[in-house]
Amino acid sequence: MKILVLGAGLVGDPMARDLAAEPDFNVTVADRDGERLDRLRAEFPVTAMQRDLSDPETVRSLAAGQDLVINAMPGFLGYRTLQAVLEAGRNVVDIAFFEEDPFALDALARERSAIAVVDCGVSPGMSNILISHAHHQLDETDDALILVGGLPQTRTWPFEYKAVFSPADVIEEYTRPARLVENGQVVVKPALSECERMDFPRVGTLEAFNSDGLRTLLTTIPAKNMREKTLRYPGHAEKMALFRETGLFRTDEIEVNGQRVRPLDLTSHLLFKEWKLEAGEADLTIMRVVVEGRKNGVRRRHTYDLFDTWDAATRTHSMARTTGYTATVTARMIVDGVFTRTGISAPEAIGAQPACVDFLLAGLKERGVVYEQRVERLEG
Amino acid sequence: MKILVLGAGLVGDPMARDLAAEPDFNVTVADRDGERLDRLRAEFPVTAMQRDLSDPETVRSLAAGQDLVINAMPGFLGYRTLQAVLEAGRNVVDIAFFEEDPFALDALARERSAIAVVDCGVSPGMSNILISHAHHQLDETDDALILVGGLPQTRTWPFEYKAVFSPADVIEEYTRPARLVENGQVVVKPALSECERMDFPRVGTLEAFNSDGLRTLLTTIPAKNMREKTLRYPGHAEKMALFRETGLFRTDEIEVNGQRVRPLDLTSHLLFKEWKLEAGEADLTIMRVVVEGRKNGVRRRHTYDLFDTWDAATRTHSMARTTGYTATVTARMIVDGVFTRTGISAPEAIGAQPACVDFLLAGLKERGVVYEQRVERLEG
Repeated sequence: MKILVLGAGLVGDPMARDLAAEPDFNVTVADRDGERLDRLRAEFPVTAMQRDLSDPETVRSLAAGQDLVINAMPGFLGYRTLQAVLEAGRNVVDIAFFEEDPFALDALARERSAIAVVDCGVSPGMSNILISHAHHQLDETDDALILVGGLPQTRTWPFEYKAVFSPADVIEEYTRPARLVENGQVVVKPALSECERMDFPRVGTLEAFNSDGLRTLLTTIPAKNMREKTLRYPGHAEKMALFRETGLFRTDEIEVNGQRVRPLDLTSHLLFKEWKLEAGEADLTIMRVVVEGRKNGVRRRHTYDLFDTWDAATRTHSMARTTGYTATVTARMIVDGVFTRTGISAPEAIGAQPACVDFLLAGLKERGVVYEQRVERLEG
Repeated sequence: MKILVLGAGLVGDPMARDLAAEPDFNVTVADRDGERLDRLRAEFPVTAMQRDLSDPETVRSLAAGQDLVINAMPGFLGYRTLQAVLEAGRNVVDIAFFEEDPFALDALARERSAIAVVDCGVSPGMSNILISHAHHQLDETDDALILVGGLPQTRTWPFEYKAVFSPADVIEEYTRPARLVENGQVVVKPALSECERMDFPRVGTLEAFNSDGLRTLLTTIPAKNMREKTLRYPGHAEKMALFRETGLFRTDEIEVNGQRVRPLDLTSHLLFKEWKLEAGEADLTIMRVVVEGRKNGVRRRHTYDLFDTWDAATRTHSMARTTGYTATVTARMIVDGVFTRTGISAPEAIGAQPACVDFLLAGLKERGVVYEQRVERLEG
């Protein structure tokens, strides 16, 4: 089986390593950064292609000879990359998390009989799958809640935050208004709002605030109440609100001493070093998904808990493991013919099929990414 | 008597108004901003001159016909303005708070028989005068402490801070290492360091942190221990340390999207609106000066307390009152022949003469700026 990974960044790289470990996979990795490719090629049996992937024609010709493509490009190149892969008629698992509506490519994907799963990381990704999984076990879904955060294990003042994602993408979570569902209606609240403290096993007290992570769930799951909250060490949200209020995240150009500059660009530049999770730096991923509803007239609560840490053996960041392995196991699922739906699928489509969820949870568990599930019966 | 005020900004304007109220003063105000001058001229009997004061020749010719000049120019123009005034041979009271060493102009001032008092605001200014005043009443000075802050009366998240000074000047206090005296040695500590909470009558709990405000005191007063701490509402220092640590106060140029920008310039630009004390917005000035030492073998503590507020009657900010009236009363002191020392004088020279201190405290009290003094006998 020939698998192509587009992008060899902090998540693309561990995905390529994971796929290369499968004996029947023949893995090609493309990136514009030759150094990244050299590091990868030195340790794993992959074909490395140094290419400028901002050109859709390059993507189409690379994809053409493959059985499946994983799109791990930065968000701003994500949509056009997915489109190029679909034009080549290839199956694809996408973790580019682009802003555009992926369903605009649904007709193209179906016409080419391509299977395309988008937003296939941890959140979005597993969060959607698990909500969908619980929803399909209930007659009626009342409440769905996602709590999710990636954190450094070592808490360093002032931010106590680092990530494998770019500062600009993280800042998006602090600025983009959060869409959530209350009493069956979509409502919009400010990012960072309704910040509350919660205790988690092993990590202690975290804070949770509204973020705009529901995406496709807003239309696929008819819950009465649904929200995503992002988890950070306490105090982070206040600092980010301070930055936002000061105007440091503004995206309009400001004239300063005759130069025109977007405050967000300068701030991202300064935060890049502060927030970069370095190779070998331990991190955590914490996710809790809670779905409440009714089955045969009885109120039930489905809870899924993830507590994942940096893997010292493979030197892989937890944020890369939990995001990337969701995509690589999904790739395996498609290759094995377990998930066969053509066209663009949100992760909820996987969650709707118990066999797919079992396959995914088992594959993640093999990789040490363990979701604990429990179902409780509630009063009333 | 002909008095010239250079600069009609947030402190220059109330100084001009205060001087214009003296029947024997003939006041001229120069500024490059015609609107400021129009507002002033509409209400007070002053001669307004719209001039570009960055040209020393302009300053020299304006100063030539005057009896005394008050230099209220921005810091970066302060030194050259003072120099031009001294070249014209005029007496001068300076609150430009420039970085350069004023004593480099001492020979010039003495040669022209000009009386020049520099740093003549509230702090530096009254703080130096009061420490000097106490010091000259003691045989030996052990400890001298200045606690000082200007604050808005209304505390608004996130900064709970506003001022009549430019953000760049305020940020200086958060970046420039603080020189202080410990065991008779000058030591340098980071700005914002040793932040502690203290309670003050009427205003409640404030925080106090090291700032580089001793300036001339470092050499004029042989105290064993001496420091200045700046007062803010609690939480401000932590936010400023966060900004500093992030690099937002950096003064080197950074390339962002092809534009070269100094982070401090952008940050000052964004904070300008946030930190600007608007006309009519109430503020406070709090200062406590504590000097401990020995007189005839007995330990004594001299304490001076200032709690000043926005003056609704004259619509004058407290920070402008406490800074500006120190200068205007000192101007009167010079004109009346009470302070006669030619050459460059630090405010400590006023503090060394009880008659001058009495004159100053009485003049300030007339204007509602009241310093409460007390002397205690200490054990040991």
